[in-house]
Amino acid sequence: MAGYDMDIKSYKKDFDYSYTLGAFPTFELIEAKASEIVEVFCSASFTDYQKLEKKCREKGVKLSVNDKVINKLSDKGNVYVVGVFKKYLQELDNSLPHVVLVNPSDMGNLGTIIRTAAGFNIMDIAIIEPAADIFNPKTVRASMGSVFRTRQKRFSSFDDYLKYVCTDEQGKSSINPVIQRLDDRIGQENGGDLSNREIFTFMLNGERPLTINDCPKPKLYSLVFGNEATGLPDEFLNYGTSIIIPQTEYVDSLNLTIAAGIGMYVFSQKKA
Amino acid sequence: MAGYDMDIKSYKKDFDYSYTLGAFPTFELIEAKASEIVEVFCSASFTDYQKLEKKCREKGVKLSVNDKVINKLSDKGNVYVVGVFKKYLQELDNSLPHVVLVNPSDMGNLGTIIRTAAGFNIMDIAIIEPAADIFNPKTVRASMGSVFRTRQKRFSSFDDYLKYVCTDEQGKSSINPVIQRLDDRIGQENGGDLSNREIFTFMLNGERPLTINDCPKPKLYSLVFGNEATGLPDEFLNYGTSIIIPQTEYVDSLNLTIAAGIGMYVFSQKKA
Repeated sequence: MAGYDMDIKSYKKDFDYSYTLGAFPTFELIEAKASEIVEVFCSASFTDYQKLEKKCREKGVKLSVNDKVINKLSDKGNVYVVGVFKKYLQELDNSLPHVVLVNPSDMGNLGTIIRTAAGFNIMDIAIIEPAADIFNPKTVRASMGSVFRTRQKRFSSFDDYLKYVCTDEQGKSSINPVIQRLDDRIGQENGGDLSNREIFTFMLNGERPLTINDCPKPKLYSLVFGNEATGLPDEFLNYGTSIIIPQTEYVDSLNLTIAAGIGMYVFSQKKA
Repeated sequence: MAGYDMDIKSYKKDFDYSYTLGAFPTFELIEAKASEIVEVFCSASFTDYQKLEKKCREKGVKLSVNDKVINKLSDKGNVYVVGVFKKYLQELDNSLPHVVLVNPSDMGNLGTIIRTAAGFNIMDIAIIEPAADIFNPKTVRASMGSVFRTRQKRFSSFDDYLKYVCTDEQGKSSINPVIQRLDDRIGQENGGDLSNREIFTFMLNGERPLTINDCPKPKLYSLVFGNEATGLPDEFLNYGTSIIIPQTEYVDSLNLTIAAGIGMYVFSQKKA
């Protein structure tokens, strides 16, 4: 990380650090992940300096006024605060609901879905690769900094995700044959319990319409959404309960972020 | 319109015509609004030419292969079909539910909300100005051509919208004092009936939480959403029932398109 502030560079995916661009996501970063912060920069013309300075002091975060850094990273000229933070790895909480995003390709969509998930208290996000970069400043900004509140973990395949959340033989076999071949150890390590977790895959050819009068009421669930352009492949019809959000023939599909928003809203509602 | 194909120009808001950029919205244009089409252009390398040619012939639409026009209008180079259409004015159907967008500023959001509304069979969209341009090619594209399926009407104020949907003295007085001063004639002209129409304003300080177990079940409704950055002004607390989508303190708000998508989904669901 040496020298980053002397020669700050536009973000690249292979960096081991990234940036928050803008006051709102930077305040979220300071609030939720101060330990990962390298330094916060702000413009001399930032109008809320006192609040920022106080918050940085409380959290032990280094703050510098540096318009050169701000101008370098702000491509549209409307950024007054930048946070530099180390990328970090996290585990999911397997005792809580998850959102699983299979191959999300757009950073704006990824950030928006994370923001919505945080809004509905679904704080664990599994991301199946290949996928948009969760720490790209565009993703962070679209999430409005929610990415620092939620837990994210990347998986190389959906089966790897299922292994991760799995604990016992019954649970495994009810979900996926791949799971049956796994040793109990794998799931126990992670404290998960797939026998209680229900998998819901959102698909245009899903079998179960999502309605507000008759929606599933699982204790523990994973909501699975596919790629923006291609959705989930047909094999996901067999992973659990496939769900379709009823829609007219006037549209080819709902936008991914809208479908995910509706799914998360309905499932996260307290049931009567 | 003379000479448009000899000297085709990048879209400007004051044009009396606009463009669909891409095959999908152009097919929607041909299907739903053929009478407004001036001409359809496609690239020599468009792979679905036969389907396009057949559809244009059926609908009596002029089709030309013209890569010069395509290249001129396609800024990202991935457009193979362009439709040129005359802008048109429409009336809303006052016997059906409406979505009312107050000062939407982003064309992508406006198009996405129109697409979602069409998906939930809410085909009447009131737009309170100032607002993003409904016929800008970016809006049309974000709507995936749904803009040609729905009816849109622009109003200079929310009160003008209320006058438009209003018919009788009772209805008027229950909604807004402005309405009381109107002559019955205004509403009757438009076939509306505000005494049956309920107004729901989506606001972060809304009084009624939107839940799936206890959502309002009006016969006829208008769902009102504010600007992306500022939401609805406080005066909208008094226009009907103000609604809040319950959300955690981890986000400052939901994204406008997500909130609108959830609102439209819940209200358009058949009630038990």
